[in-house]
Amino acid sequence: MASEKLKHRKSENLIEWYNDVLLASEMVDFSEVKGFAVYRPYGYSMWEQVQRFLDPRFKCIGVKNTYFPLLIPEKILNKEKKHIAGFTPEVAWVTKGGDRDLDEKLAIRPTSETIMYDSYSRWIKSYRDLPLLLNQWNTMVRWETKETRLLLRGRENLWQEGHCVFASEQQADGNAIEVMNIYKDLMQDVLAVPVLVGRKSDMEKFAGAERTYTVEAVLSNNFTSQAATSHYLGQNFSNAFEIKFIDDKNEWRYAYQTSWGMSMRSIGILVLVHGDETGLVLPPIVAPTQVVIVPILKGEKEDEKVLEHCKKIEKRLDALGVRTLLDARDTYSAGWKFNEYDLKGIPLRIDVGRREALEDTFSVKIRFSGEKKSLKMDSIDTIPAELGKIQKEMLEKALVDMRSRIKTEKDRVRFVAAVKDSSVVVKAAWCDRMECEEKIKDATGATSRLIPLEKEELIDKKCVFCGESAKVNAYFAKSY
Amino acid sequence: MASEKLKHRKSENLIEWYNDVLLASEMVDFSEVKGFAVYRPYGYSMWEQVQRFLDPRFKCIGVKNTYFPLLIPEKILNKEKKHIAGFTPEVAWVTKGGDRDLDEKLAIRPTSETIMYDSYSRWIKSYRDLPLLLNQWNTMVRWETKETRLLLRGRENLWQEGHCVFASEQQADGNAIEVMNIYKDLMQDVLAVPVLVGRKSDMEKFAGAERTYTVEAVLSNNFTSQAATSHYLGQNFSNAFEIKFIDDKNEWRYAYQTSWGMSMRSIGILVLVHGDETGLVLPPIVAPTQVVIVPILKGEKEDEKVLEHCKKIEKRLDALGVRTLLDARDTYSAGWKFNEYDLKGIPLRIDVGRREALEDTFSVKIRFSGEKKSLKMDSIDTIPAELGKIQKEMLEKALVDMRSRIKTEKDRVRFVAAVKDSSVVVKAAWCDRMECEEKIKDATGATSRLIPLEKEELIDKKCVFCGESAKVNAYFAKSY
Repeated sequence: MASEKLKHRKSENLIEWYNDVLLASEMVDFSEVKGFAVYRPYGYSMWEQVQRFLDPRFKCIGVKNTYFPLLIPEKILNKEKKHIAGFTPEVAWVTKGGDRDLDEKLAIRPTSETIMYDSYSRWIKSYRDLPLLLNQWNTMVRWETKETRLLLRGRENLWQEGHCVFASEQQADGNAIEVMNIYKDLMQDVLAVPVLVGRKSDMEKFAGAERTYTVEAVLSNNFTSQAATSHYLGQNFSNAFEIKFIDDKNEWRYAYQTSWGMSMRSIGILVLVHGDETGLVLPPIVAPTQVVIVPILKGEKEDEKVLEHCKKIEKRLDALGVRTLLDARDTYSAGWKFNEYDLKGIPLRIDVGRREALEDTFSVKIRFSGEKKSLKMDSIDTIPAELGKIQKEMLEKALVDMRSRIKTEKDRVRFVAAVKDSSVVVKAAWCDRMECEEKIKDATGATSRLIPLEKEELIDKKCVFCGESAKVNAYFAKSY
Repeated sequence: MASEKLKHRKSENLIEWYNDVLLASEMVDFSEVKGFAVYRPYGYSMWEQVQRFLDPRFKCIGVKNTYFPLLIPEKILNKEKKHIAGFTPEVAWVTKGGDRDLDEKLAIRPTSETIMYDSYSRWIKSYRDLPLLLNQWNTMVRWETKETRLLLRGRENLWQEGHCVFASEQQADGNAIEVMNIYKDLMQDVLAVPVLVGRKSDMEKFAGAERTYTVEAVLSNNFTSQAATSHYLGQNFSNAFEIKFIDDKNEWRYAYQTSWGMSMRSIGILVLVHGDETGLVLPPIVAPTQVVIVPILKGEKEDEKVLEHCKKIEKRLDALGVRTLLDARDTYSAGWKFNEYDLKGIPLRIDVGRREALEDTFSVKIRFSGEKKSLKMDSIDTIPAELGKIQKEMLEKALVDMRSRIKTEKDRVRFVAAVKDSSVVVKAAWCDRMECEEKIKDATGATSRLIPLEKEELIDKKCVFCGESAKVNAYFAKSY
């Protein structure tokens, strides 16, 4: 049953449905500043779950947290030419402090390569100072001129940005790939969203990077969405910022660097992939509330027994470490609560009425499958395993869905039509040349999304678009 | 022994010594932007410990985390008159996005009352929506015109800001006091810094508050430093922002509010209170590394046994949950390491030489007391208790020190001299009038710091400064 609070249907208008769900579930709200969202507790706590997974994973590979200034002087931002060319059009500038004009305007960080590497150049002197592995959890501002979308493309974005320095190319590139795989694990194991991973083409890579690795999800309209990226920066920035070290042979060398980031966009992708016509559908690991208990009250004296039974269940689930909410409010009806918690995507609901209280049972409804069952009280200990099963099945279902949306194609005409209409995500043999990609963009409105890292057999000997010799297989789609 | 890395002595020049310690211990660094610090991993991880204590304490009283926009439109910032009068002189303004001038300039949040309450006015409709208890961990910018000081007064500050809404004055005021007590616990139980708590005078209270509660530490130069504040806002903001609710008698009423915040300044105070001529002195709860193990290597074949013994100790301490670092690097001498870890304030050092390895013992040095002892290997299990003892004794020592710096005074001439020279912190009977406080400020350069909440016997019947009838006891001192 579609929620009354959702004006649009997912199957008809993905983006309007998406806005409806985010607002109605109280995950996010608009603010008075265009492109700046308010992250309400229900949405923000999902970001806290993402942090709870990523932060220890980063610490495991030796990364430490740090915090660098929010504002970056123009002259520092301008040091790496390709980088600044990529970011200048979307920088927000501070020009006044109090009622005085500043001597030099200051950028709100669009990303922190420049301000961090300015410090790195002073900190790194010797091979003994390497590797330097730092990460920040912060906010960044990019003055998007395109239409903004809640969580997916805002003018302000919560994210983490890692910035590492190494003595060799091999170590640095290894770090970029390792972090790409951590991001993949987050998407799949925590958010239950299957992803494609690989490298970006030269046209699509980060401004200032040698190679960009990407993690991409496939949406129900056959668009893709970039969940996170990890960049091997080579020596581009170490040259611009003079990040040099004396190696163990007493020679000065320029360092090799990486930067990598994941934002709250990952949460937006989760909503897009798993939500349905009734609202959010959350995988248990990221759900702020994993189980909600709803008593069916009749205004009779048996109500007391029902509530007592609910409290017993709540206590048992608390003891099992399940994030549980007992909604015993008498100011809302059970029916209202059913709709509300369906909308909020709570993975598992337990209903308790007079019968359940008398028979020492409880009724379970699984949000993602719609499955209902009645269980005896001593089955309460199976709830954590049930939540684990939901987590696994949500990923499996989404994986089947993703695979069904990807088609290989050898024919140029059908390739152009499919990419242009977003009828599928197309995987095709490609020449990997920027010149060809520009023409594909003109013809379809889309670009390559990624090129798999693993050696694959080429789908065809010639490029699907230009007919020249194919170098790689690549995925093509429109993207948010 | 004073560290060679510190150019100034704490006993001679507190603030220059403080800068030396922060920079040399790699807690903090200057950036290219005046008044904006870089929080290096060693300093930032102390902030993470503060978060690890405060965040669950807030959640225990029902507070949830949220995130509101970094930028606030001028017209919203201007809604509460006293508030904006307090903040306008120090707002950083964004006036350009990309290469376009903005229609309305946007303030970087100096504090989020205005932007949050704008949303609150839309979210709160009924008594059922109350209380609303939200907190943000974020960064704020205040364009200080006074000299900035690392951690104590920056143009950018990491902090948390709580903003709560209640149906009654009693609940709201109770929340403000409850949070003041949480801050007190953080300072005393985590940072081992004794504090005075109470309310601010009318002159010193927050712009827009009815009452400001404060937590203040006493420094070795008899200055005080405000560690955190908690404000009862009354209905000032609910009137300005139209935050109204229908009560259970179906009548519209304006809500009562609080806001409260603690910043990284608390870490600066910890450094000021506990540091010594050799560097930082950290209490174990907040120390990133609690125990460092230094092997004494001689370049002989016994070195192997020494390292083996160190690893055994490290393993045991890891298993006990102690944050342990074994520094087995052969690129630095043991003497260099002793100085380095004294400078970094690591609470407990374990030295292992040939003798310790042979006798199955280890040598302990306590950073804060300088105490040394030799222990048998089976005493390793007492290390956590030893750390607990250090934590407790650091607070006790600082408490004795704080008490020695506070003197009561009834005589006006001696009062003025003492406050002006910072020879002590003065507690005195006072009339609690703004007019009198302005004259005290003119005469001494200092103001009242706080008025205790508990009923106390008045030190004198008349105000120490103006001679009118005394209403309260108050503390007077200069402050950072």
